[in-house]
Amino acid sequence: MPIVAVIGDGQLARMMQTEAIELGQSIRLLAGAPDSSAAQVAADVVLGDYTDLADLRIAVEGASVMTFDHEHVPTEHLHQLIAEGVNVQPGPDALVNAQDKLVMRKKLREIGAPVPPFAAIESVEDARAFSAAVDGAVCLKARRGGYDGHGVWFPSPSELDSLVSELLDAGTPLMAEKKVALVRELSAMVARRPSGEVVPWPVVESVQTDGICTEAVAPAPDLSPELAERAQQLAVTVAEELGVTGALAVELFEYRDENGQPTIAVNELAMRPHNTGHWTQDGCVTSQFEQHLRAVLDWPLGSVRQTAPVTVMANVLGGDTDPEKPMAERMLDVHARFPEAKIHMYGKTYRAGRKIGHVNLAGAELERVRREARLAAHYLVTARWADGYIA
Amino acid sequence: MPIVAVIGDGQLARMMQTEAIELGQSIRLLAGAPDSSAAQVAADVVLGDYTDLADLRIAVEGASVMTFDHEHVPTEHLHQLIAEGVNVQPGPDALVNAQDKLVMRKKLREIGAPVPPFAAIESVEDARAFSAAVDGAVCLKARRGGYDGHGVWFPSPSELDSLVSELLDAGTPLMAEKKVALVRELSAMVARRPSGEVVPWPVVESVQTDGICTEAVAPAPDLSPELAERAQQLAVTVAEELGVTGALAVELFEYRDENGQPTIAVNELAMRPHNTGHWTQDGCVTSQFEQHLRAVLDWPLGSVRQTAPVTVMANVLGGDTDPEKPMAERMLDVHARFPEAKIHMYGKTYRAGRKIGHVNLAGAELERVRREARLAAHYLVTARWADGYIA
Repeated sequence: MPIVAVIGDGQLARMMQTEAIELGQSIRLLAGAPDSSAAQVAADVVLGDYTDLADLRIAVEGASVMTFDHEHVPTEHLHQLIAEGVNVQPGPDALVNAQDKLVMRKKLREIGAPVPPFAAIESVEDARAFSAAVDGAVCLKARRGGYDGHGVWFPSPSELDSLVSELLDAGTPLMAEKKVALVRELSAMVARRPSGEVVPWPVVESVQTDGICTEAVAPAPDLSPELAERAQQLAVTVAEELGVTGALAVELFEYRDENGQPTIAVNELAMRPHNTGHWTQDGCVTSQFEQHLRAVLDWPLGSVRQTAPVTVMANVLGGDTDPEKPMAERMLDVHARFPEAKIHMYGKTYRAGRKIGHVNLAGAELERVRREARLAAHYLVTARWADGYIA
Repeated sequence: MPIVAVIGDGQLARMMQTEAIELGQSIRLLAGAPDSSAAQVAADVVLGDYTDLADLRIAVEGASVMTFDHEHVPTEHLHQLIAEGVNVQPGPDALVNAQDKLVMRKKLREIGAPVPPFAAIESVEDARAFSAAVDGAVCLKARRGGYDGHGVWFPSPSELDSLVSELLDAGTPLMAEKKVALVRELSAMVARRPSGEVVPWPVVESVQTDGICTEAVAPAPDLSPELAERAQQLAVTVAEELGVTGALAVELFEYRDENGQPTIAVNELAMRPHNTGHWTQDGCVTSQFEQHLRAVLDWPLGSVRQTAPVTVMANVLGGDTDPEKPMAERMLDVHARFPEAKIHMYGKTYRAGRKIGHVNLAGAELERVRREARLAAHYLVTARWADGYIA
């Protein structure tokens, strides 16, 4: 059986381990700490630093393929490992587009994928010019390292100059893009094999709160078949043109064009399993974690048939204070109230804003499923029922 | 989060680990070998002997509960551990009924559960008398240690004397039961919590080949609602009356009574997840492995709603010779032909008659699903398509 070396020790690697076990595979982690989310549950763990070439070499020794639970391994190391014969999936030429938002947007524009107007911002003058071109509707982004709303700013015209000079002075490479007239966010995920097969999942609606994904609804409600098809095709094109292998999430803006018609543009790319794909664990024949492993191994991909009319994923995000009631008891209370709720916990300590788990709920009626998933996730964070329910 | 100590290192413990990861739990194994099926995929492994009280004590140190992937831990050790304050689920008074077939049948008769006529066999005379009473329809069983057709004999009247004296001379404690006019085998599984909640799964048909379960079909086709209800109620009664906690499989004979009407009797009990429950991984909201963990922790049990009209589980049983084509490539071929097939492999080496994995397939049409599951399992064993398919 092949050994899959996974660089990263977070919940995405942890949930890959779940699927690897059932596929009879060995998974080897390069983990930063023995008590990290994934290292807690894996038998074959190399402790080390993913920015250290020597550690990467140790992790991949004897493995069939190297893959990732994040996109932050230096691409020069990956080029070196490939030169040494390592099978790296996805490869550095794809990954660079998930590491640098400006590189990504240039590439997307080049392949004809829709993106909002954007520009590199290397000076206050650049920012002023861009702001004038988009009537002040500026979204400023750090080119590298942002996540969950970090590294994204929406300055008013009067704030623009000082914010840009402050960030540039601090050494943050910047870009700007035009704020769109957002209707909602969508996510189109696909998996792609090195030999070419690409399979798209149903398009989901991704609900964001303060820049963090809090909920995903599969399939996206009230999405026209035409727009769904366009979103899936866009994700397939991105995967093919950028040479992505494994799971790819194309996060999308749904917005109104100048004629008031709904349309889409790419917001971000993630080249790995993604929060907006967690619903597949309990609502789809093949989960994104199994599909990712199969894809990077160049195995045939599985069916993405939905096993329920609708599945809702609600994130369990740490709040300001961890309630006194232990998490295990909170889970028990959720299980007692909602026997269909599937709770997935990451083995992470509670911290404000931290993703420590998620709840999947599948069923026939969107409103009921969504309400129950939200109540469950909220209860796991607060030990309180948001609707006043008393057991 | 609670630590669940699992005594045993086979595929059942391995698949508990899958579910434990998602529940955010730690699982601790008492394993006989570091390369055993479950130890390959667990981070917290104690190497030791499940018949050794000292090893059991080490495995359970700091755990919330001790449970099992087999029924063979000496009950005197379990009584001792309970006296020391350990939470053992299921407890020894339940387990003894899964260890000794005669004890089990006496207990079942006592609680009014249907069992074929039976008797203890301590001499050739006992065997002759029993044979005369059942018109020669004798099934002879070793009271302890039998599995997968081992320890079961169907002697003709002329073979009976010599077989019985041979087995008794070898020190095998024996019992006999009357062979029934078998229609088929069924399995009724439930999970039960120490505090009393019991949840039955749909009754499945269990297809046996040479005494080994090769296939399970959920729900059992053409089973009358009345008989299905009776089988479920029987399993609930057994769990309650015997004090079983965790998963319980009640293996049943469906046979014709003296009036030619279909009826049921208990064949065997297993107090743990069971081969006839593997289909729940891909055909049910809550798998038997998750439900077992929740049950032994006394957590509320999950929904057992089926997520497809029919699910078929086909065992991957090692054949006479392991084909040259590596197993990973066989899996790849199955995935290519059947994108809906869910392959579960146990990390075990190939050996004739050994269960090394299973395939689950869920869908709407029984015949198609069953045919595809069989083809897939057969291919994984032989690297040949039984229907002559050429890729």
